Amino acid sequence: MTETVPRPTLEAVAARAGVSRATVSRVVNGADGVTEPLAERVRRAVEELGYVPNQAARSLVTNRHDAVAVVAAEPESRVFADPFFARQLRGISRELTAHDNQLVLLLTEGRHDHARVARYLAGGHVDGALVFSLHLDDPLPGLIQRAGVPVVFGGRPGWSGGGNDVVYVDSDNRGGARDAVRHLLGLGRDRVAHITGALDQTSAVDRLDGYRDAMAGAGPRLVAEGDFTLAGGERAMRELLENHPGLDAVFAANDLTAAGALRVLREHGRRVPDDVAVVGFDDMLPFAEQTEPPLTTVRQDIEEMGRLMARLLLRGLDRTAAARGTADGSPSGVICPTTLVRRASA
Amino acid sequence: MTETVPRPTLEAVAARAGVSRATVSRVVNGADGVTEPLAERVRRAVEELGYVPNQAARSLVTNRHDAVAVVAAEPESRVFADPFFARQLRGISRELTAHDNQLVLLLTEGRHDHARVARYLAGGHVDGALVFSLHLDDPLPGLIQRAGVPVVFGGRPGWSGGGNDVVYVDSDNRGGARDAVRHLLGLGRDRVAHITGALDQTSAVDRLDGYRDAMAGAGPRLVAEGDFTLAGGERAMRELLENHPGLDAVFAANDLTAAGALRVLREHGRRVPDDVAVVGFDDMLPFAEQTEPPLTTVRQDIEEMGRLMARLLLRGLDRTAAARGTADGSPSGVICPTTLVRRASA
Repeated sequence: MTETVPRPTLEAVAARAGVSRATVSRVVNGADGVTEPLAERVRRAVEELGYVPNQAARSLVTNRHDAVAVVAAEPESRVFADPFFARQLRGISRELTAHDNQLVLLLTEGRHDHARVARYLAGGHVDGALVFSLHLDDPLPGLIQRAGVPVVFGGRPGWSGGGNDVVYVDSDNRGGARDAVRHLLGLGRDRVAHITGALDQTSAVDRLDGYRDAMAGAGPRLVAEGDFTLAGGERAMRELLENHPGLDAVFAANDLTAAGALRVLREHGRRVPDDVAVVGFDDMLPFAEQTEPPLTTVRQDIEEMGRLMARLLLRGLDRTAAARGTADGSPSGVICPTTLVRRASA
Repeated sequence: MTETVPRPTLEAVAARAGVSRATVSRVVNGADGVTEPLAERVRRAVEELGYVPNQAARSLVTNRHDAVAVVAAEPESRVFADPFFARQLRGISRELTAHDNQLVLLLTEGRHDHARVARYLAGGHVDGALVFSLHLDDPLPGLIQRAGVPVVFGGRPGWSGGGNDVVYVDSDNRGGARDAVRHLLGLGRDRVAHITGALDQTSAVDRLDGYRDAMAGAGPRLVAEGDFTLAGGERAMRELLENHPGLDAVFAANDLTAAGALRVLREHGRRVPDDVAVVGFDDMLPFAEQTEPPLTTVRQDIEEMGRLMARLLLRGLDRTAAARGTADGSPSGVICPTTLVRRASA
């Protein structure tokens, strides 16, 4: 263990800056009423002495820790391998940092660790949590809600325990899917198939609904179930070609699924887009540009979604601090628009 | 904000399990003296009700939060892109989870956020910290030491403020470098050059020292400064070929540097290993297997180092709890052995 060096005190900072303890305290806690030259002197003394304010004492006054937890329901190894999560986290990190809030990422090895995460959240270490929980049967959201901290979810939670008071940020999965299918119909295709994502995730359910919306009255519904993986896309594409050899377009639930479909279409001698047009979802870069042919797909602004989640949580915390109990009127879901990105595949 | 559902109480769990409050408390806090069938009944009731123990009350008793912070001195975006950090974190996560401790990863956007990290550590939210700080001029270790929490460092800290009481886990960078150079000498090479890493990092300094050890009396020291990047390796290799065209071997400070050297040697028509033998450091997979030719290199067990860091910290915490103030006798550094992995390049 490292030996503890004596921490410089508030008094030492006051002496160095030649001001009163109260002035140092006001500057350190971000209160008003100190002139800028004086505040600057205090900040310099804080820096020179390496003063660390007593967070516990400060929390007693402000009732805030200036820290926000990020919790992913996936195991640590998957969290670190997921390019989406990395991008969302970037948006979250930037927004929290801009408000001088500490990002506290709580990692786990699996579901059996979720009770411990809930204990940590309930223990008064953070002001709120940003939670990513993708699967419909996940117990994490319920556990976290019982921990009694304000939460904003990333993606519409499938779990319905929270009623209207659940706040989340999501892409317009349904609208984006509608755009994709309408684009294919607009190209004159009339046998448009859909390969779904993993249907235990709300994003997959919403994209399937978008496909159904757009296909109403426009042609037969040709659906095969995928799972958001490349191998799942290959499997589903084979199934579709067997059952519906006349199909002339495919809307795949994500870019990986589309890449699997492209591979199987090539194996079967179908030209893309001439024989079969293909659209993906996500615009996962550089992946979506490197498929053969490059993929037309639906783009979501992942980093902005992360930023929005953080902003909503911080805004809610301010409101709670200003007038406890008047959280009504919160939006229950904030839906971010998507954009169709045209490349060669459709 | 999500609405707060009333939290199930200790009393509710006791009623459900048909036991006393004291029994529930003992089971929840991991104390002895409860028979296994009774403990099992309590655990089932805890699960069924979704009971979350009051962490604050528990901390008062045990003086522990069962949470350990991981702090990297690098910005969030670089932390997530670094394959080493991901592997070290995996080791840490597994070890902490095995001891039911929560991994709390504190992310930042840059150096200006380090004071906030120190505040969080000082605020009584974690029992200790595992700190990765690679650069000699980094203020983070000092800030963290002032925060007064037990710390184990990943890699030998360049900063010397902590005296002998600094605990760290590192690879045997110097010994591994010696092995690499001795291997080249053992192949009969007598003009062995070294491309260094970024010399503001202790690992680069230690590897250079290992090269010097092995070259003592064995031939001229041919050194060019690199920076652990591929481009740096290319630059340094060009410089070496210009100044010492007769060189017949290169020990590069890491695998990326070695890949840059291989590229420049190929450009200059030097065959590897026939004309020039090359050894790297790290065994970064699959990268080190995919160079042309595949790279002979020095392997470190990154995941095990992470596990060791966590183990040392937890052991120190137990010792502190058992007898406060008797932390003497701690090892100051734990050095993990390296292995030379032979492939085609040397």
